[in-house]
Amino acid sequence: MNEINTIHISPEEMRANFTDILISFNFSAEDAKICAEIFTQNSVDGVYSHGVNRFPRFIDYIKKGLIFPKNKPSLKNKIGVIEQWEGALAPGPLNAVFATDKALEIAKESGIGCVALSNTNHWMRGGYYGWHAAKKEHIFIGWTNTTSIMPAWGAADPKLGNNPLVMAIPYHNEAIVLDMSMSQFSYGAMELAELKNEKLKVNGGYDDNGNLTNDPGAILKSMRTLPVGFWKGSSLSFVLDVLATILSDGLAVHQVAKKEEEISCSQVFIAINPKKLNGSVNHNKVIDQIIEDLKRSIPINNASYVRYPGERAVENRISNTAKGIPVLIPVWKEIKSFLT
Amino acid sequence: MNEINTIHISPEEMRANFTDILISFNFSAEDAKICAEIFTQNSVDGVYSHGVNRFPRFIDYIKKGLIFPKNKPSLKNKIGVIEQWEGALAPGPLNAVFATDKALEIAKESGIGCVALSNTNHWMRGGYYGWHAAKKEHIFIGWTNTTSIMPAWGAADPKLGNNPLVMAIPYHNEAIVLDMSMSQFSYGAMELAELKNEKLKVNGGYDDNGNLTNDPGAILKSMRTLPVGFWKGSSLSFVLDVLATILSDGLAVHQVAKKEEEISCSQVFIAINPKKLNGSVNHNKVIDQIIEDLKRSIPINNASYVRYPGERAVENRISNTAKGIPVLIPVWKEIKSFLT
Repeated sequence: MNEINTIHISPEEMRANFTDILISFNFSAEDAKICAEIFTQNSVDGVYSHGVNRFPRFIDYIKKGLIFPKNKPSLKNKIGVIEQWEGALAPGPLNAVFATDKALEIAKESGIGCVALSNTNHWMRGGYYGWHAAKKEHIFIGWTNTTSIMPAWGAADPKLGNNPLVMAIPYHNEAIVLDMSMSQFSYGAMELAELKNEKLKVNGGYDDNGNLTNDPGAILKSMRTLPVGFWKGSSLSFVLDVLATILSDGLAVHQVAKKEEEISCSQVFIAINPKKLNGSVNHNKVIDQIIEDLKRSIPINNASYVRYPGERAVENRISNTAKGIPVLIPVWKEIKSFLT
Repeated sequence: MNEINTIHISPEEMRANFTDILISFNFSAEDAKICAEIFTQNSVDGVYSHGVNRFPRFIDYIKKGLIFPKNKPSLKNKIGVIEQWEGALAPGPLNAVFATDKALEIAKESGIGCVALSNTNHWMRGGYYGWHAAKKEHIFIGWTNTTSIMPAWGAADPKLGNNPLVMAIPYHNEAIVLDMSMSQFSYGAMELAELKNEKLKVNGGYDDNGNLTNDPGAILKSMRTLPVGFWKGSSLSFVLDVLATILSDGLAVHQVAKKEEEISCSQVFIAINPKKLNGSVNHNKVIDQIIEDLKRSIPINNASYVRYPGERAVENRISNTAKGIPVLIPVWKEIKSFLT
């Protein structure tokens, strides 16, 4: 994303701008800071589609009264190591980081903690909460349901959610972080590719005629995005929705899809405390060996480089912290307009 | 699998034969019964590759001294709702069903129970343990690592495991069950397709020249099977291995791969007790609505039928119970030979 039509914004400047904007939209100073940090960090880590590029839509949802900046989640039910919370349509990132911390709290005592959250808003980048938990030395497994964006295997119309699944493991001062949506490409990624007039690197769905295509615009039009691994991702998406719905007593994908916009999602946050487990075993050393083996892979060609999940986020973080975050000029102009 | 070269064996006959064979290989009568039931049920449910077709290899491993019929798992560590068990290279299916029941026991009290099992043998079909937990009214999330069978994304040589992931949810008298390995096709499925001289229905990997192919034989030869969703399944496989290894203090894929055969796997069994959660909510009704919405999908053509995960197992169970389990004649001959 280093095209001619981008500018580079320092994380500090982005964070300050987001904070000011959120305060002007009725966030408390503290909440604005947390929320701005999440949008900024997502951008620093290179997930622009769920960072800076998504910020205008987030503001739009606040304006439309779909996100309630002052609302707070409330406890519905607590059974053993599981807590159910009602999200009150508060800002998704604030609810999600709150739920993650609650799960960590329970895991600290019991080894595992699970928070299931209903009626919440889009959490933006799920990986953020994985990194957050891992930096606090906990394993994290979490997922959200979404609106319907993908046909089930064998179907032509979208009934399944993108339902991203996050798994994170503390690793030295960083983390191993998987952040995987159930479509081959997220809508955010396809929108960005279309904005940049690029093709997808593998086929991402079907066009209106039912042919596989790597044209993001054609897939955004047909809404026939391809599940990860064909029938397998279709099934995984379905099961994650059922689990999130049941565990949170929240809405399922088919119910979220009936809303005018994507709100009232159901989410699950599971934290596992590995400190209580490792005894004499040094987990970092164990993971070092796993990564060393991975890195001994024979690359398919000179251009290929085998990464572990989360490695690219660290690379982006180093680069974007040094050079500033690349932002598409129209996007930054729109963000600046919120300040006037 | 209704070709000319199959015979139909009733579940009762299969179960009785397996039991007799296992007893002759030093299983206790009770263990033989449990293990025979798992192999039979997997076959009844249509997962022949990890049922009847795999039974001869299971016996071969016993003969080679890789599986110890009389061994039992032992508790290594217990912290809150997590238990670590050492599997002692006991029969994989026996260890796995034992670990599932332990996780259910913990979940009954605490909402969630997790058993991590090291040094165990192949569990055959992971979905069995999902069905087992769901029939006892618990949600199940579990996975195993395996030997290396799949190159990481960007690599040519196999460093990743197939690492099947299972998620199951009780549903009326049946269950929603996902049983998903991280390669587009399991080796079991590719071996079966090759045995039957069939092509895979989508590309499943690369041939020796690096071209995508649906020829199971070419993929079995190159060992370049394709991860589910390209880079996504590659990452998910990696993370599941790290988690299984750390949670169980067991061996990672790269260590299992150094063994002469696939033994000493690491596995995770998480049970969640939804009864404690549902309060006034009827989970079956919630899932009914989700499935009803799925079934309202527009099929891509007249031949397509949209299923929920686990639905085909129920269909196979009905058909195979009525008509007998279709078994390839050479496979059944080999099994019968163990009795003489």
